[in-house]
Amino acid sequence: MREVAVLGVGMTKFGELWDRSFREIGIEAGLQALVDAKLSSADLGALYLGNMASGSLIDQEHIAPLILDYAGLGSRHLPGVRVEAGGASGALAFHQGYQAVASGLVDFVAVGGAEKLTDVPDVTGNQITSAAADHEWEVVFGATLPALWALIAQRHMHQYGTTREQLARVPVQAHAMGSKNPNAHYRNRITLDQVLAAGPVAEPLGVFDCAPLSDGAAAVVLGPLEVARKYTDRPVRVAACQVACDTMAVQHRKDVTVLDSTVVAARRAFEQARRAPRDIDVAEIHDAYSISALVSLEDLGFSEKGHGGPDFAAGRFAPDGELPVNMSGGLKAQGRPFGAVGVAQIVEIVRQLRGESNERQVKDAHRGLAQDVGGTGATSVVTILEEAS
Amino acid sequence: MREVAVLGVGMTKFGELWDRSFREIGIEAGLQALVDAKLSSADLGALYLGNMASGSLIDQEHIAPLILDYAGLGSRHLPGVRVEAGGASGALAFHQGYQAVASGLVDFVAVGGAEKLTDVPDVTGNQITSAAADHEWEVVFGATLPALWALIAQRHMHQYGTTREQLARVPVQAHAMGSKNPNAHYRNRITLDQVLAAGPVAEPLGVFDCAPLSDGAAAVVLGPLEVARKYTDRPVRVAACQVACDTMAVQHRKDVTVLDSTVVAARRAFEQARRAPRDIDVAEIHDAYSISALVSLEDLGFSEKGHGGPDFAAGRFAPDGELPVNMSGGLKAQGRPFGAVGVAQIVEIVRQLRGESNERQVKDAHRGLAQDVGGTGATSVVTILEEAS
Repeated sequence: MREVAVLGVGMTKFGELWDRSFREIGIEAGLQALVDAKLSSADLGALYLGNMASGSLIDQEHIAPLILDYAGLGSRHLPGVRVEAGGASGALAFHQGYQAVASGLVDFVAVGGAEKLTDVPDVTGNQITSAAADHEWEVVFGATLPALWALIAQRHMHQYGTTREQLARVPVQAHAMGSKNPNAHYRNRITLDQVLAAGPVAEPLGVFDCAPLSDGAAAVVLGPLEVARKYTDRPVRVAACQVACDTMAVQHRKDVTVLDSTVVAARRAFEQARRAPRDIDVAEIHDAYSISALVSLEDLGFSEKGHGGPDFAAGRFAPDGELPVNMSGGLKAQGRPFGAVGVAQIVEIVRQLRGESNERQVKDAHRGLAQDVGGTGATSVVTILEEAS
Repeated sequence: MREVAVLGVGMTKFGELWDRSFREIGIEAGLQALVDAKLSSADLGALYLGNMASGSLIDQEHIAPLILDYAGLGSRHLPGVRVEAGGASGALAFHQGYQAVASGLVDFVAVGGAEKLTDVPDVTGNQITSAAADHEWEVVFGATLPALWALIAQRHMHQYGTTREQLARVPVQAHAMGSKNPNAHYRNRITLDQVLAAGPVAEPLGVFDCAPLSDGAAAVVLGPLEVARKYTDRPVRVAACQVACDTMAVQHRKDVTVLDSTVVAARRAFEQARRAPRDIDVAEIHDAYSISALVSLEDLGFSEKGHGGPDFAAGRFAPDGELPVNMSGGLKAQGRPFGAVGVAQIVEIVRQLRGESNERQVKDAHRGLAQDVGGTGATSVVTILEEAS
């Protein structure tokens, strides 16, 4: 296993990109990443592309060759691999691209994530988001993803005393960060009162506790660490990348307040990186729902189990806190184009480690973590990135 | 790169499996492969799953953890990776699983392919098969996959003098072999006259020139060759596995009668295996349409370009010919559950190399090739398997 570095990153604005097609946003992110890596497309050996639901959303499967083709690489006949794991599709693509370079099978790979969600009306209602949950055990009985996460929230409140106000702190911080992120879907600040007064989606979760559906794409270029300095002054090393799965249905878990897939992926990742949660300086985590953020902070080892709510409310994960979390604005404010999310998290961490995050820059960020979750946690991917010494 | 062996294989019957769900057929194939490999599920390190369109077909994405869960492996938190490349999804999953073992990242992996196509009415008409073609350049103008392959056939007939009768030989042989395959979707023999008299789908292709839509699943277990003899007396070595992509739209190709992705993937595979087309004893190729079989035989190097039709009609690819092709019955008669096809091809070749193919057994089969194609050739995967010495 050789060491792998992120050589370049790119992403589109996230939001309602009605005037731009899937292939256009895919190419924009990819070209940004190539330019950032000072590589030409001729250097690439493969493309790994994360996407959840292009078949249902835009009647288009087979999208890895589509993006290679539209990038002008059709005649190079590169391998193109689309991977899917619900909302964790982007991070899973990163994992597969990382393995390809780490194993020595290929030198330079592009990893992309892209999703066009807003061209279809009522994506949640018509079951496209629900396709990441268990159709036979959950969805046919009327459960949607917000409803399932609401069950987890109810149990978390019952079991640990987590409060509605603690949950509401998550989107307030997300929008504050989104206001400083030119790529964010939402750039408006919101107040605690607004979150609490918003209409319910599935109690206790209101409109502001749920991330939006967005269009968007993100990309990174990976290569061997040993040659990284030829391409960039600030290479970022992939210290670990691990995937773990869990039961599809929430009801089949021992304790619904624990994302076992995140616990296991994080344990494996910290082992691989020979680090502990306290060594992380900045993190991007799964805040598709305010409860998913609190549970993730606990299951990644950043809060004791059950303490996510009070810790968040105390400012531990604020920009000036002990561990700044979701400085991008997270899924809540930066946006949530399913397959692009996991790659965009990597883009944010890389820019933080390089000191390129402007108003959102975390001081002394030397090591970062990204956690991407599919469905209600049937897949989690945890990646640890470090400044290359 | 370490050597990789196929340790076990399994598959369900292909056909209209209306009484069985996606997860049921996925598990059946996987358990067969595990039993065949004399492995327990506890030995597995990862699952790679090929599937094209479960989101559109059964409202279920995120299917790798689904299958792990239903197999009772949810609590082991293995990595599950679903890959998609239209009709080449199964072979692409095999390729990713092969790379994972070859690189030493994991010892034993299960590779599966599954698709439930017959629970939805009019899959071709409602654009689910067309999602493997280029939506913006082909499908919105009314082109379906049969129509696109018909264009290729027309040009092949014009350019090389290929005849309607030569095309019709392909399904006649396929059904003859299907009649000997207990897993085949179609087990009835058909005559040349029946093929020629059948209603047109897209001229020159008639009903019998087009493979059916089927339900079905197939699976293999891969492991390091060095330990293979602990598990099986007849290990099969993966001598090569290569993927290549091409333009999505047929119209963007220099010569529409050539599948460049197959030409390139085959060239890379023969180089990796240090073999030539004449070294192959048995092959499974992409006969989703009779023209796709002839073009594939040419582009794999088994026929000179343009000679596929006369060579096939002369019996060169018959059971007693120079190179027996599609002894399973192929996509035409064994069936065509998109994501399962590429894995089922591997299953057939492995059984042939082990001498387990009963009535369909090819004599002296020591080395086999499988070619899986997505859409009209935007992805091709070519795999070469050998008896382990």
